[in-house]
Amino acid sequence: LEEDEKAIREIITRIEQAWNAGDSARFAMPFAEDADYVVVNGMYLKGREAIDRAHRQIFDTFYKGSTNRFTLEHLRFLRPDVAVMHVHAHATFQDGVRESKARGTWIVTKEDDAWSIAAFHNTTITVPGA
Amino acid sequence: LEEDEKAIREIITRIEQAWNAGDSARFAMPFAEDADYVVVNGMYLKGREAIDRAHRQIFDTFYKGSTNRFTLEHLRFLRPDVAVMHVHAHATFQDGVRESKARGTWIVTKEDDAWSIAAFHNTTITVPGA
Repeated sequence: LEEDEKAIREIITRIEQAWNAGDSARFAMPFAEDADYVVVNGMYLKGREAIDRAHRQIFDTFYKGSTNRFTLEHLRFLRPDVAVMHVHAHATFQDGVRESKARGTWIVTKEDDAWSIAAFHNTTITVPGA
Repeated sequence: LEEDEKAIREIITRIEQAWNAGDSARFAMPFAEDADYVVVNGMYLKGREAIDRAHRQIFDTFYKGSTNRFTLEHLRFLRPDVAVMHVHAHATFQDGVRESKARGTWIVTKEDDAWSIAAFHNTTITVPGA
């Protein structure tokens, strides 16, 4: 289980590094091929390629030059090979001033000894202090 | 599996009926005792009782007299006893005019032969057509 937790935490690190490099393909890599993704605006994306494409778009425009810090808030194993995480994301825009905060639910599963993100749902935090 | 799918769909029906009755305790019932819940404003709630309390508050105020229609969009089994759903919720406020739409990711698990919601994450739909 310690090994599993380590592998799961590595997913967060990879996502963070990919975001900060503005690399959508790297960002999408830890997702399962058929992953589900619900965007902060409620849009539904299906699959790693759609996740790559959507992030390429935001990395080239709205979030260009931004940096994002991801913090694991909770990690809970629903099964030995299925876990739910809550991850806080604190993004600072290119101007170094504007920022946005989000909270995500990430469902990760272990398939053939490797962990990947099966389902992801993200929400902008609009309530003070949350 | 057909039995399981039926039981899972019943959870949606129960949630819808509870919402439309404005009954927060009934709303919270299909959640696991230790369920995780992320609200549309990014707030994190832990456990059935917190879910009950938060809904009692909105049923008494913002959503008083509203009706909500829940539609299952996707159901995917990650394991025989773990499934991920996407559920579309279309609420109409008491005035019969204003409305809001949300998309939720619901993670359901089967424990001791009964299905319940282990993790729930909801987002207001703000993108046209989604």
